[in-house]
Amino acid sequence: MPGVPPARYAYLGPEGTFTEAALRSLPAAARAELLPCPSVPAALDVVRQGEADGAMVPLENSVEGSVPATLDELAAGDPLIVTREVLLRVGFALLAKAGTDLEKVCRVGTHPHAHAQCRTWLATHLPDVEIIPTSSTAGAAAAVAEPGSHLDAAIAAPIAADHYRLVELVGDIEDNPHAVTRFVLVGRPAPPPTATGADKTSLVAYITDDHPGALLEVLTEFSVRGINLTRIESRPTGDQLGRYCFSIDCEGHIDDARVGEALMGLRRVCADVRYLGSYPRADQVRPVLRRGVSEVEYRDAAAWLARIRDGRL
Amino acid sequence: MPGVPPARYAYLGPEGTFTEAALRSLPAAARAELLPCPSVPAALDVVRQGEADGAMVPLENSVEGSVPATLDELAAGDPLIVTREVLLRVGFALLAKAGTDLEKVCRVGTHPHAHAQCRTWLATHLPDVEIIPTSSTAGAAAAVAEPGSHLDAAIAAPIAADHYRLVELVGDIEDNPHAVTRFVLVGRPAPPPTATGADKTSLVAYITDDHPGALLEVLTEFSVRGINLTRIESRPTGDQLGRYCFSIDCEGHIDDARVGEALMGLRRVCADVRYLGSYPRADQVRPVLRRGVSEVEYRDAAAWLARIRDGRL
Amino acid sequence: MPGVPPARYAYLGPEGTFTEAALRSLPAAARAELLPCPSVPAALDVVRQGEADGAMVPLENSVEGSVPATLDELAAGDPLIVTREVLLRVGFALLAKAGTDLEKVCRVGTHPHAHAQCRTWLATHLPDVEIIPTSSTAGAAAAVAEPGSHLDAAIAAPIAADHYRLVELVGDIEDNPHAVTRFVLVGRPAPPPTATGADKTSLVAYITDDHPGALLEVLTEFSVRGINLTRIESRPTGDQLGRYCFSIDCEGHIDDARVGEALMGLRRVCADVRYLGSYPRADQVRPVLRRGVSEVEYRDAAAWLARIRDGRL
Amino acid sequence: MPGVPPARYAYLGPEGTFTEAALRSLPAAARAELLPCPSVPAALDVVRQGEADGAMVPLENSVEGSVPATLDELAAGDPLIVTREVLLRVGFALLAKAGTDLEKVCRVGTHPHAHAQCRTWLATHLPDVEIIPTSSTAGAAAAVAEPGSHLDAAIAAPIAADHYRLVELVGDIEDNPHAVTRFVLVGRPAPPPTATGADKTSLVAYITDDHPGALLEVLTEFSVRGINLTRIESRPTGDQLGRYCFSIDCEGHIDDARVGEALMGLRRVCADVRYLGSYPRADQVRPVLRRGVSEVEYRDAAAWLARIRDGRL
Repeated sequence: MPGVPPARYAYLGPEGTFTEAALRSLPAAARAELLPCPSVPAALDVVRQGEADGAMVPLENSVEGSVPATLDELAAGDPLIVTREVLLRVGFALLAKAGTDLEKVCRVGTHPHAHAQCRTWLATHLPDVEIIPTSSTAGAAAAVAEPGSHLDAAIAAPIAADHYRLVELVGDIEDNPHAVTRFVLVGRPAPPPTATGADKTSLVAYITDDHPGALLEVLTEFSVRGINLTRIESRPTGDQLGRYCFSIDCEGHIDDARVGEALMGLRRVCADVRYLGSYPRADQVRPVLRRGVSEVEYRDAAAWLARIRDGRL
Repeated sequence: MPGVPPARYAYLGPEGTFTEAALRSLPAAARAELLPCPSVPAALDVVRQGEADGAMVPLENSVEGSVPATLDELAAGDPLIVTREVLLRVGFALLAKAGTDLEKVCRVGTHPHAHAQCRTWLATHLPDVEIIPTSSTAGAAAAVAEPGSHLDAAIAAPIAADHYRLVELVGDIEDNPHAVTRFVLVGRPAPPPTATGADKTSLVAYITDDHPGALLEVLTEFSVRGINLTRIESRPTGDQLGRYCFSIDCEGHIDDARVGEALMGLRRVCADVRYLGSYPRADQVRPVLRRGVSEVEYRDAAAWLARIRDGRL
Repeated sequence: MPGVPPARYAYLGPEGTFTEAALRSLPAAARAELLPCPSVPAALDVVRQGEADGAMVPLENSVEGSVPATLDELAAGDPLIVTREVLLRVGFALLAKAGTDLEKVCRVGTHPHAHAQCRTWLATHLPDVEIIPTSSTAGAAAAVAEPGSHLDAAIAAPIAADHYRLVELVGDIEDNPHAVTRFVLVGRPAPPPTATGADKTSLVAYITDDHPGALLEVLTEFSVRGINLTRIESRPTGDQLGRYCFSIDCEGHIDDARVGEALMGLRRVCADVRYLGSYPRADQVRPVLRRGVSEVEYRDAAAWLARIRDGRL
Repeated sequence: MPGVPPARYAYLGPEGTFTEAALRSLPAAARAELLPCPSVPAALDVVRQGEADGAMVPLENSVEGSVPATLDELAAGDPLIVTREVLLRVGFALLAKAGTDLEKVCRVGTHPHAHAQCRTWLATHLPDVEIIPTSSTAGAAAAVAEPGSHLDAAIAAPIAADHYRLVELVGDIEDNPHAVTRFVLVGRPAPPPTATGADKTSLVAYITDDHPGALLEVLTEFSVRGINLTRIESRPTGDQLGRYCFSIDCEGHIDDARVGEALMGLRRVCADVRYLGSYPRADQVRPVLRRGVSEVEYRDAAAWLARIRDGRL
C-alpha cells in the first residue's frame, strides 16, 4: 500500500532474545520494522514518544516470576495499555564459537534469570565453570562472538546462534522443560481490542492503608462479581517497607458488565487504580462463569432496576 | 377542592387500635376517609382492588418482633409498595365499664401480643385472672362494652376507651415502657417518594439453595457497597422446613447508586427478589457512609469507566 | 426397675395437641408421666424447677415460621438445653359434637396459627363462618365439647377428637398437606447426647452493634469453618427497634472441632452467646463437609501446630 | 568461656556488602566468626549442613521489592526458620581507585538492583557511562580494585570502600534517600524466640487451585482472626503460568492463640503451608487488636467452650 508507512515495533533487545521471537510470532510483525531497545523502560519510552506503534516486553516467567522492570514501568509514567499477550516456551542452549570443546569451557556468560533456570544442568555437567552475569542472554552470545572474548560460551535462546554466528554445544539445558514466558505488546492509550469472550484485563490497585482487610476488600470487589484473578503481585510503592500496590490480571474484558462494575468498585475503595488494558488471552481459555454474572444476567438486572425505579412492578 | 374526592385509607381495625392511631398521625389522613378492616390481608386487598389509596398495617414491634401476617402478605399476591413508616410508642391500659371494681376483675380479654407485653404487670397485680385471647385489643374493648359481656376488662390502647365508652382502671401497664411498634403505609406500585437522604428500602430475597454461604452471599451484596441492614427476618417459604426467604430493610433509597447496584446484585444471585418500596425513615437518621459508596464517588467511578472504555486514559 | 421413679415430661397442653403427639413419638415417653402445661413458659418453668425431666415444645412450623414464645423463653431465664428434636406432619380436622350439620356451623374456634393454615379451605367451604381465636387448638376442641358451647366446631389436630369426644366433620383441611412442625425436647443443663454425625447445635447470638458487617461477622465465623446454618431468625432484644439477636441452628455437634471453634469465635466477637444444646437431627441428614473442616483434618492441623511450635519442622 | 566455640554466621558476601552491615548490627555477631558466601542458596546451605549457626540474607527492599532467590530458597529444600529481622537504610556511593577523575569514568560495575536504584542520578550525572552488571555490589568494588581492571568505578555500599581500598568519588547517589532493605537471620528448626508482643510470623501458602475465591479463602483465615498482613507476594510454583504460592508475613507470633488458629486454618484449606518462623519486629510496632482476638479473649472463650461441653451452663 503506497503511502502507508510500515508499522514499527520496539522490543527488549538485543537481537536474538526471546522477546524478539515473541514479537515475530505476531502476524503484524511480519512486514513491520522491528527496533531492539537496551531495556524495558527504553522500549516503552519509544512508544510513549510516538516513535513506535507498540513495544513487546516480557512480563512474567513460569519459573522466575514477574519481571519487576516491566511491572514498575507500566505502573508509572505516561499511561500505556496492553493490547496482546504472547506465551513462549523458553528453552536454553549453550552456544559457543564453532570448534569450541565443551571440556575446555571455563567462563560462561548469561543473564541471571537464565542462569537460575539452568542451575541443575550446570551443577551436573559443568560444575566448575565460572558464570559471568550479562544484561541479556543475547548480550552474552554477542560477547562470546567477539574476537578475543573473555567468555568461552553463552547460555542463550537457540535463535541467538544464528544472529551471532555461534553453534549450539548443547541444547535444551533448561531444568524445567515446561518453562513459559509471557510477553505483552504495549501501545498508547486507545479503545481496547473487541472482547472475544476469552480475555484478560490488567491493572494496578493502590490500597489506601493496611488495615487487616485492605487487600481482602480489593479481592472482594472481584469475587462478589465472580471474576477470577490469573495473577496478583504485590509491589512496593517505594515510600516505605510495608506499603504495597497490587499488580493484577483478571479474567474478562473491560467492556464486560461484571468487569466494568468491579473496576468501578476498585476505583471507589482504592487510593488509585491504573488500568493497563483488556486483550485476548493467548491460551484462549474462556472463563467458567458462576450464576449471576453473565452479560445476559447483568442486562436483565439493569432492566428490572429501571422498571422498579419507575414503579412498574 | 371541589371535584377531588377525598383520599381513602384502609387500616387494621377495628376502630381504636394502635394502627388507627398510627394512621391518624399522618397529615394526609386528616381529611381522608378511614376504613377499618378485620385483618391485615383484608386491608391490603382493599388497596389491591383499588378501593383505597393506601393501607396502614403493623410491621414489627420492639418487644414481640415482626408481624408475620404483614410480612407474608406483602411477599405474596399482587405487588404493593411501602411509601411511609410510622413509629408509635405502645402503652397499654386496663379498660372496663365505669364502676368496675379492680378487685372483682376475673376475665380479661386482649390480643396475645398485648398479653405478652403486660405479663409481668399481670403476674404481680392480677395473678389469678383468666386471660381470654381476642383477635385485637380493640376487639376486646368492644366485647367488654357489650351488655352482659363474659369479659370484665380489656387490655387495649388508651384510645380504645373513648371509642367504646370504657374507663381506664389502670394505665401504663406495659412491662417495657419503651416498646415501640412500627407501622407501614402501603400503596399500589408507583415511583417511590423522592429520596431524602434518610431513607429505607424494603425487599424480600429468596435464596436459591442453602449451601453454607447462601445467606452470606446475600449480605455481601449489601456490605460490599457499605449498606447497613436495619432488619432481617428469615421466613419459611412454606415448602419445607429449612427453606427460607429473607425479609430485609436496608438503609438508603432505590434511587441511590449503591442501593440500585446492590439490588441488581441480589436480583442476579437470588432465585427471586421482591422489591417492597423506598420511603423516608420515621426517625430521620441519615446513614454514615464509608469511603467509596457515596453518590459522588459512584458518579466519578462511572465517568472514569466510560473514559477508559473509550481509551481516554 | 423398683425404686426408680418414672420419668416426667411436661408439654404444651392441653391434652390432644400436636405437641402431645410429638412427645408420645419418643420411646422414652411410653412409660413416663406426661404433664400438660398451659403455655410454653409454664412448661419450661416446670423443668427449670426440677419438677419434670424435660419439656416438649413447638419451635417452628414450615408454614407459619418460628414460635416466638419458645425462642424467647429459651433465650431468657435459667439456662436450658435442647436434647431432641421431633418433626411432625401437621394435618387439621374440623371437629364437632356428633350430629352436627356442616351446613349449620356458624362459629368455629381455633388457634390463630391453625386458622392461618386452613385459610383457603375455609374461604372455599365455609366462607361465612366466624372464627373465634382460642389459645390452643385443643382448647377450641375442649370448648366445643362443653355443654351449651358458643362454638359450633373446632379446627384442631385429629387426635383431639378422641380426647374431647368429638367427631371429625371434615379431615385434612390444611391448605398445605406438606406442612411440618418441629418440636424440641428441652432439659436442664447437662453434657449433650453423644455426637451421631448427623447433629444440630442451637444457640442465640447477640451482636454488639449494627455496623454494616455485624451479622456478616457472625455468619463468617460459621462459613469459614464450612458450617451450614439450618435456621436463622432475628429476634428483637426488646430494647429498641433495630436491635436484634439471632436465633441460630447450625449443622454439627458442640463436640465437633469445627463447631467448637466457631462457637468460640462467636463468643469473642458477639456481645453474648447463649448455647442451647447439640442433639441428633430428626431427619438424620449428615452434612456434606467441604475440604478442611473434618475431625481428621482438625486433628492433623493441631498436631502440626504443636510440632512447629516446638521447632520440629 | 573456655571450651565454648564462638558462633559462626554465614552471609551473602562478598565482604563489604549491605548484608554484612546488617549482620554486624546484631550484638551476637560481635564475637562470632562471619562467613561470606557467594549466593543466598550457598549461605543457606552452610546453615542446613550445620556449618554455621545462622545466615543473614536480604529479603526485600522498599524500592526493588522482594529478593526472589531468598523467597524461593526458604520455600524449598530442608526447612529453615527466620529468627531475627534487620532493617537497614540503603545508600550508595560511587567508588574508584584513589586519583580517579570523575570525568574519565566510562565503565561502571554494579549489581542490577543497585543500578535500578541510582538510575536518575546516573542519567543526570553520568549519562554516557556503560553499566556492567556484576553479581554483587561488593563484587564490582573488588573488580575495580584489581590491577588493570576493565571497570573504572563501582556503585556499592560505602563500607565497601574500606574493604577494597577504594575512595568515594560521590556519596548518596541513590534516587530514593529513604530506601530500606530488610534482612533476615535464618537458622535450623528450633522453637521460636519468645513472643515480645511486637512479632511477625512468616510462611508460604500453596493454594489448591485457582477458583475465584482461593486467595480470598487464605486471606479470610487471617482477617477473621484480626491478623494484619505486612507482606504478601505471589510466587510462581514453577509448574505453569497462573499457578502461584503466596509468601506471607503477618503480625503476631506462632504462640499467639489467634496466629496458631489461623495457621491451623491455612493448613486445612491449603495444599501445603510452610512455616518460616516467628521473630521480633525490627520496628517494634505492636499490633492494634480488634475486639475478640486478644490472648485473654481466646482463653476466656476456650474456658467457656469447655464448660458448655461439660454441661456447666
